[in-house]
Amino acid sequence: MSSAMGERTDQQQIDVIVSEVGPRDGLQSLHRTMPTEAKVRWIEALAAAGLREIEVGSFVSPKLLPQMADATEVVAAATKIAGLKVLALAPNLKGAERALASGVHVISMPVSASRAHSMSNVRMTPEDAVEQVRQVRLLIDAHVRATSLEVGISTAFGCSIQGDVDEDYVMQLAVMLAEAGVDSIGLSDSVGYANPTQVRRMFTRLRAEIGDKAGAGHFHNTRGQGLANVVAALEVGVTTFDASQGGLGGCPYAPGATGNIVTEDLVFLLESMGLRTGIDLEKLFAARAILHEALPGEPIYGHTPEAGLPKNFVYAREHRNS
Amino acid sequence: MSSAMGERTDQQQIDVIVSEVGPRDGLQSLHRTMPTEAKVRWIEALAAAGLREIEVGSFVSPKLLPQMADATEVVAAATKIAGLKVLALAPNLKGAERALASGVHVISMPVSASRAHSMSNVRMTPEDAVEQVRQVRLLIDAHVRATSLEVGISTAFGCSIQGDVDEDYVMQLAVMLAEAGVDSIGLSDSVGYANPTQVRRMFTRLRAEIGDKAGAGHFHNTRGQGLANVVAALEVGVTTFDASQGGLGGCPYAPGATGNIVTEDLVFLLESMGLRTGIDLEKLFAARAILHEALPGEPIYGHTPEAGLPKNFVYAREHRNS
Repeated sequence: MSSAMGERTDQQQIDVIVSEVGPRDGLQSLHRTMPTEAKVRWIEALAAAGLREIEVGSFVSPKLLPQMADATEVVAAATKIAGLKVLALAPNLKGAERALASGVHVISMPVSASRAHSMSNVRMTPEDAVEQVRQVRLLIDAHVRATSLEVGISTAFGCSIQGDVDEDYVMQLAVMLAEAGVDSIGLSDSVGYANPTQVRRMFTRLRAEIGDKAGAGHFHNTRGQGLANVVAALEVGVTTFDASQGGLGGCPYAPGATGNIVTEDLVFLLESMGLRTGIDLEKLFAARAILHEALPGEPIYGHTPEAGLPKNFVYAREHRNS
Repeated sequence: MSSAMGERTDQQQIDVIVSEVGPRDGLQSLHRTMPTEAKVRWIEALAAAGLREIEVGSFVSPKLLPQMADATEVVAAATKIAGLKVLALAPNLKGAERALASGVHVISMPVSASRAHSMSNVRMTPEDAVEQVRQVRLLIDAHVRATSLEVGISTAFGCSIQGDVDEDYVMQLAVMLAEAGVDSIGLSDSVGYANPTQVRRMFTRLRAEIGDKAGAGHFHNTRGQGLANVVAALEVGVTTFDASQGGLGGCPYAPGATGNIVTEDLVFLLESMGLRTGIDLEKLFAARAILHEALPGEPIYGHTPEAGLPKNFVYAREHRNS
């Protein structure tokens, strides 16, 4: 979910960061557990396809989400991959302690702008969630300063429990989080309510409020509007987008919420628009085989892998060189 | 596919015309025939939901497309619906004669910018297709001047047979068609190759070349990018979009081409952006039942009908009144 570019010294320049959330957001919403060995193979394949940021697990209680019980092992394997920025979610201070010990590069924490969703999801008010983020910042600073801290403000565009979410309040939360020492603060359409007009307005405001700490766009395709929202966000300067291979996952706590945008379709969109992602689509398609094999019968979505690349497709980097 | 607004005197103002192509483009690509009675009920239900333009059939040889053999009857029924603009496709002069006799309001003709696609689809060069359009214009003028003539330039963004399609040539075709007396000339992404950058560029050029004769955007969702292209087209002033209820259809002559954008998802996108379509989404969802009943087992797509409307959804017209 990081918005910062250029922390690594890649030979190949990129314009947009695609941040893969499938191994965390995707797998945690399935009613089955992917074996650790397959998770690691999948993450390696995604990194080999050129993905530079992957959220690989969640340091949540294994009683709540047994699918995420191996987070420490998965982080250990993922941080061995050269050039990969490894993210993991921590829902609270206890999770953050485990995350820090694992050596993860980025701790991501969820803060919901909907009071109803926040109570239902983490049994905390949004303000208590911000306070917890502040404590995690202090914890990080006392330990390893290299670990960064990101927050995606969930239900930032509306909530399937309470309906409207006040946009001014979302901005207040963003400012509070920036003051609490969060490095990057994104906006998440956790339930597929966002529209391009709102996306343009909200990300413009976010940048005005918190400047370079404005982070990723996290959109769902629940009503088919996911990539339309990406186009709108690109226009107002968003350069990092979350997505999930095969469209795995969503938010299991918000009723009726399904559908992360599909990494494959997002990368195709960006590259065809002339925006460099550093990702090889054929290798990305190949990584789907690991999901089919490890999660038999699970629906794996994506239009571009089914249709194949256009006959005249060129990557943005080739287009620019020609 | 018309871009002209305000030809009818509706009480309710609209910002964007959604032009339904399902009864023609959708049904002609199925390997089965929908009974005339069901077609008419479907068209009536679509009109009752607020759709103001529907392409109801094709005056093609019944030997080639038996699904369209009842075009005259369907047009006769559709033109009885108050306030509905009825379109029908005519692939050639002979079809246009039948279309004129049927009393249809708009004759649409396909002209492909890809030489390979044009030869494969209608066994004519693009220039011969333009010449045929010119003859249809003369035919219309000799008969009933009220009938208007529209062309969607197919494969305008690339072709699955020949790959690239020269953008300058697409613009030359548009100018030739305008000079031949076509009232409205749109650009069609018949094979799902278009991207938002290209869409902005091409529709901007189209308007520069032919002014108010610039017509509809016809996009496919083959690679998940359909509504992303709509957002880009809206930005450069396109106000009419083709779509198909349930995503029925595509172009049966272009290999690998599937996927008209889904009317339901398009209307949700536009209304949630604050753009008035005049369409009632609940009534539009209800019209799907006719498809399920008349085409058992046929896949009927659409995210919004599955997910339902957001809890806080308001129509653009209500939003403006509040």
